This record gives sequence, C-alpha cells and structure tokens, in this order.
Amino acid sequence: MTPSPTPRPRSVLFAPGNRADLIAKLPRSGPDAVVLDLEDAVPSGPEAKAAARTVTRDAARDLIAAHPHLAVFVRVNAPHSPFFEDDLGVLTPELAGVVLPKLESAADVRLVAEALAGRGLSLPVMAGLETGAGVWNAREILVPPVRWAYFGAEDYVTDLGGQRTPGNVPVPNLEVLYARSRVALAARLAGVPALDIVVTRLGDEATFREDAAQGRALGYAGKLCIHPAQVPLAHEYFGPTDAEAGRAR
Amino acid sequence: MTPSPTPRPRSVLFAPGNRADLIAKLPRSGPDAVVLDLEDAVPSGPEAKAAARTVTRDAARDLIAAHPHLAVFVRVNAPHSPFFEDDLGVLTPELAGVVLPKLESAADVRLVAEALAGRGLSLPVMAGLETGAGVWNAREILVPPVRWAYFGAEDYVTDLGGQRTPGNVPVPNLEVLYARSRVALAARLAGVPALDIVVTRLGDEATFREDAAQGRALGYAGKLCIHPAQVPLAHEYFGPTDAEAGRAR
Amino acid sequence: MTPSPTPRPRSVLFAPGNRADLIAKLPRSGPDAVVLDLEDAVPSGPEAKAAARTVTRDAARDLIAAHPHLAVFVRVNAPHSPFFEDDLGVLTPELAGVVLPKLESAADVRLVAEALAGRGLSLPVMAGLETGAGVWNAREILVPPVRWAYFGAEDYVTDLGGQRTPGNVPVPNLEVLYARSRVALAARLAGVPALDIVVTRLGDEATFREDAAQGRALGYAGKLCIHPAQVPLAHEYFGPTDAEAGRAR
Ligand SMILES: [Mg+2]
Ligand SMILES: [Mg+2]
Ligand SMILES: [Mg+2]
Repeated sequence: MTPSPTPRPRSVLFAPGNRADLIAKLPRSGPDAVVLDLEDAVPSGPEAKAAARTVTRDAARDLIAAHPHLAVFVRVNAPHSPFFEDDLGVLTPELAGVVLPKLESAADVRLVAEALAGRGLSLPVMAGLETGAGVWNAREILVPPVRWAYFGAEDYVTDLGGQRTPGNVPVPNLEVLYARSRVALAARLAGVPALDIVVTRLGDEATFREDAAQGRALGYAGKLCIHPAQVPLAHEYFGPTDAEAGRAR
Repeated sequence: MTPSPTPRPRSVLFAPGNRADLIAKLPRSGPDAVVLDLEDAVPSGPEAKAAARTVTRDAARDLIAAHPHLAVFVRVNAPHSPFFEDDLGVLTPELAGVVLPKLESAADVRLVAEALAGRGLSLPVMAGLETGAGVWNAREILVPPVRWAYFGAEDYVTDLGGQRTPGNVPVPNLEVLYARSRVALAARLAGVPALDIVVTRLGDEATFREDAAQGRALGYAGKLCIHPAQVPLAHEYFGPTDAEAGRAR
Repeated sequence: MTPSPTPRPRSVLFAPGNRADLIAKLPRSGPDAVVLDLEDAVPSGPEAKAAARTVTRDAARDLIAAHPHLAVFVRVNAPHSPFFEDDLGVLTPELAGVVLPKLESAADVRLVAEALAGRGLSLPVMAGLETGAGVWNAREILVPPVRWAYFGAEDYVTDLGGQRTPGNVPVPNLEVLYARSRVALAARLAGVPALDIVVTRLGDEATFREDAAQGRALGYAGKLCIHPAQVPLAHEYFGPTDAEAGRAR
C-alpha cells in the first residue's frame, strides 16, 4: 500500500460526482483532500449514477493531471447498494483513496478489500461510520485497508429514527455526542485519523466554528466540508499539517 | 408470537396495579398502550403485592373487555425479585405483552422466556434497561421475545450511586446521556422501538416538552407516561402512528 | 488481601513524590486518602525519578507513623514506562494501596499483579483509566487486585489528540462526557468506587463545585484533589463516609 500524501487531513472537500464544473474548482480553497461523490450528491437512479460515473472518471483524471500533489478521493456507493460494483469501475491507482459510506461490519470491510483486490487496486479506504451498526461496530471496522474514518451525523440520526432539528436539544449536537465520541475513540484505538461531521448550514460561519471547536476537542483530525468557504475555517481549528509541524520543529 | 397491535407506541401510560379506579380511567387520554404496574407503583411487601395481583387481574380483564383495541400490558416485578413467579399468575393471553423491569443479561431474558413458556404464554416482552448491567448488556438483552425496550433514568442513576438532582448538571439529563444514547442505539440494532424516560415532575409541561424533544432527537419511539396529561404531549413529539402514516401515503 | 481503610474515599489528595514538605502537610485538610506521586508530578528523567523515590520512601514511612489511620497511597509510573520496576521498590505493606496510571488492558493488570506478588506485596490497586485503550477496555481492567478506579480527563484528551480548552465546548467537560460516563458505569459493574477528574484551575471554587456536582451526578464516589482547598469541597459533594452513614443509621 502506498503511503497517503495526506495522513491527517484538516479538510476534506466534497463535490457532486456529476458536476465537472464544481470538481474543477475544488483545489481553489486549498483543501487537504477532495472527494468526488457518487453517493449522496448524485440522485439514486441507475441512469443518474451511470452518468455521474462518466463525469467523475474524466474529472478525476483531469484534476490529478492538473494538481499532482492534491489528494483526490472518489466516494462510491455503499457495499450493499446496487451501485457499488459499477462504481468501482471509476477507480484508478492514481487516486489517494476511496471513500466507502455506511460501512457496518468487519465483513463489509473484507467485501470491500476483496472487491478492490479483484480489480487490481490497493487503494486505502476512508470508512464512513454513519449508521447504528457502523457506530456500534466501529472498532472492528477500522482495520486495514481502512486508513481514515468519518462520522456522518445526518445519516446516523436518520438510521436511528431520531431528529436532527437543532431546537430539540439544549446544546448543539447533543443527540450525536455518544456516537461522535465513540467514533473518535475507536479511531484512536485503530490509529487512524477521524473526520468530523458535515455542517449543512452553508454561509453560517458561527455554527461552523462552534462545530469545528467541538470536533477538535473530541479528538477529530479535521472536518468534512461541503462548501469551499468551510475549508479555511477548518484549517483554523485543526491546526498545522504534519508537514508544517515538521518544519516548525 | 402474535403481532402486537402497537408496534411503535408513542405513549405508554402507567397506573398502579392496586388502583382499580385509576386503571379504569387509563383509556381516557388516548394512550397507544397502557401498563398495570405491579412493580414500583406497589409497596414492596408480600401482602401489598398479593392484593395488587388480584386487583390487576380483574382490572385487566375488564379493561380488555371494554376496550378490545387497547394495548394492555402488565408490569411484573424483576426476574430475581421474590415476587416474580407469583406475578406471572396474573398474565393472560389477551394482554398485548408483559413489561419486565431491570433486565440485566441474556440469561435473564432466557429465564423470562422459559417462565412464560412454562405457563403456556407467548407474550411479547417490553424490557426495562435501568441498571448498570442492563445498559451495558443492552445488545444481548434485546432479543426475542423482547419486542420493545425502555430506559429508566431514575433507577439507572440510583444503581450507579449517582444523583438525579437537576441542578447538578448544566443541561437537563446530561448525567444519563451516555446510557440513554446507548439504549437507543442498541434498540435500533435489535430492531425494537425504544421508550424514553419518565418525567417525574407532574404538571410541568415545559419540562416534559423539553424531555420529549430530547428523546425524539435521540431516536426514541415514544415516552413512558405516568399522568394522563403527558399522553397528548407525547403524541405531539413522537409523530403519527404507523397506521396514520400509512393512511397518509 | 487486607480490607482497605477507605473503601469509598470522597477525596484523594495528591502531592509530588519529591516534595517532603508538601507530603508532610497532606493530612491537614483531612482528606480520606493521600497519594505520593512518582508519575506526573515528578519530571521524567531517570535522576529526577530516582531522587523522588528516596523522598517518597522516607516520607511515606514518616506519614504512616505519624498518622496511622490515614490511607496512604503511592502512585508509580505506568507499567510499560522505564520507571515502573524501580518504582515498585518504594512500596511497603503499610501502604493502603498503590496507584497505577494509564492501565490499558487485562494484560496490564496481570503484569502489575505479578510484579507486586514477585515482591511479596498484596497491595490493592487504584487503576487510572486515562487513555483511549483504558476507557475502551475499562470493564476488563477493573478486576482484582484493582479496588478503585479513577478517570483522568487531561491524559485521555491528550491521548485522543483532542483539546481540553474550556471554550471549545458549550458545556464544561462535554468533550469527556462519553469517557467519564463509561468509566463510572464500568466501575459500577466491577463493584469498585470511581474517583472523578482533577480540576486543574486552582483557586477557582465555582469551577470545582460545578465539576464535583457533575461527578456526583454521574455516580463517582469522590474526587482526585491536587490542592488542600479542594478537599473540604469534595466532602460537601460526595456525602458522608461509609462510617458516618453507619453511625447515622
Ligand atoms: Mg450520507
Ligand atoms: Mg423502576
Ligand atoms: Mg496523568
């Protein structure tokens, strides 16, 4: 397995896998890693997913060619989804890794590892822990080829039948504190960096800052970002990169 | 096992098993389920428990006859209490289920299942997770015939030697957030609805609303209620019943 | 194993193991237990540790002679540290017990038990759970000869790569609520008293009170104290000793 160029990304910026225009702009905000998303950002029908694959394949190739030092990931659909196998066809060895949403068990990780190996790929995996099973089984899921984890609050709460309306709890994110803390702890035990929850309220800098401070306190290494404006904020809270810290020594 | 008429109760209203007058009034507030309680609501002596059994047996029969569509449960005393075996004598196949407080292990569940089978009963069980062991072992306890779970905050905190004085924590229920979150998660994994903590401050609508909103956010399906006025409030927060949702489709 | 004189200490007051003057003053504030610390309070070099051992050995002997009813502990360095074996040379049967920081597994506990037995000592152990592994594996660590547990928030957060800056979270200690709750629960299952986190802000009585109230709510038996002024405050929040409660009956 080749060592990743971003062992501990402070920011992981997503763009829809079917939007070549947005993908091309991903590097502008200076994120530590970028993700071309074939899952949540693309409508769930077979045609939409197929079209997005074509866009993502070409856009990823162009992005890597233009920015050889940028860590480019593709997020495929979950292992038990009908899109998983075809999504794998988009992956190439030039990627920094593949993002796997909704991993739920050690068996899921083996399935993913075997599917990658079957295509001659040895990409490291960023594992999405964002269901009840994923959070409960976090410890057994965070094994090689998994090299990063992220916690997805929206999907987690949906899976539990809960509600993520801010007014429901007296303190932001209290409804996911147990799961968010458990994922940070499991990631520490596995020795992999954990990426913190998405802030869905775009343009609300105060909420992003509050949220990033919480994630930093809990031990997260960085944040999933869904808008370029979130990237510099994430870098404020998640400190210097390993490289910067090295230079400072 | 017969399917329960209330797979996902928004409200579970309790009445003391020794109070025929209160039991008869249970349906008035329109709860999704009712419980005739032989445990906490009845003093702990053998005579008091014996007297309550007689009241409960007759009152449950009358209630079911008068309200054939109401889901009527009886809460017996805990499996290792001296009252458990005699309490089982009250149960009949007409009940919607039996509530088992303070379940602590898979062995407890087997003991209960065998005791019910020994009496020719196949009632589904609502499991009380309200001790340290119950919360820790939640995952292994929530197996058939368990079909619902509830989290009991007062008993849990007592068992841990903690304190449930509201002023102790800066945010309501913070002292049970770990356990309350863990039970909601374990219930999700087991595929059973979880019922949220009792609000003991009667007549305090604001506290009940705040508490219900928290429970809803965490993924609970409904609330244990100890006063009829809590029932309509619970229904506000825990959404439409499955049947209503079905009609709306 | 001899029964400890302080089965449930409300306060455990620390002094640096290299400060004979502070050690001699430990009894003044009336703590339920005291700890002569060879770990965090002593610089990490071999000479500093060696010098502290001499001071601690003599000071512990004098303290026990002058205060035969005081529960005196020594905190050694962690089992896998280079100081552990030599630290054991300080221990004597007259101590109330030995404090082991950063225990992480059942194997660590066996290693400690064997090391003590190898020196003919049968001291009970106060286990520090203050790393990711310690908190995750709490249940298996809290077995004999462990007879008390403590949760260390500063070390825990450091180990997770988090931050303990109060402003990061909207409510004090939210970044450790999961771990602090889990340790209290694991201690309850093991039947051992749990000691709550250190308050590092000396002279800030309000913060200590708030912190103690939280710990009490969660089920902790008492608090680790690092200043004599914290001892009477701890006793306010953690109620009567077993002996006092016995007299009151
Ligand atoms: Mg998602
Ligand atoms: Mg109870
Ligand atoms: Mg320490």
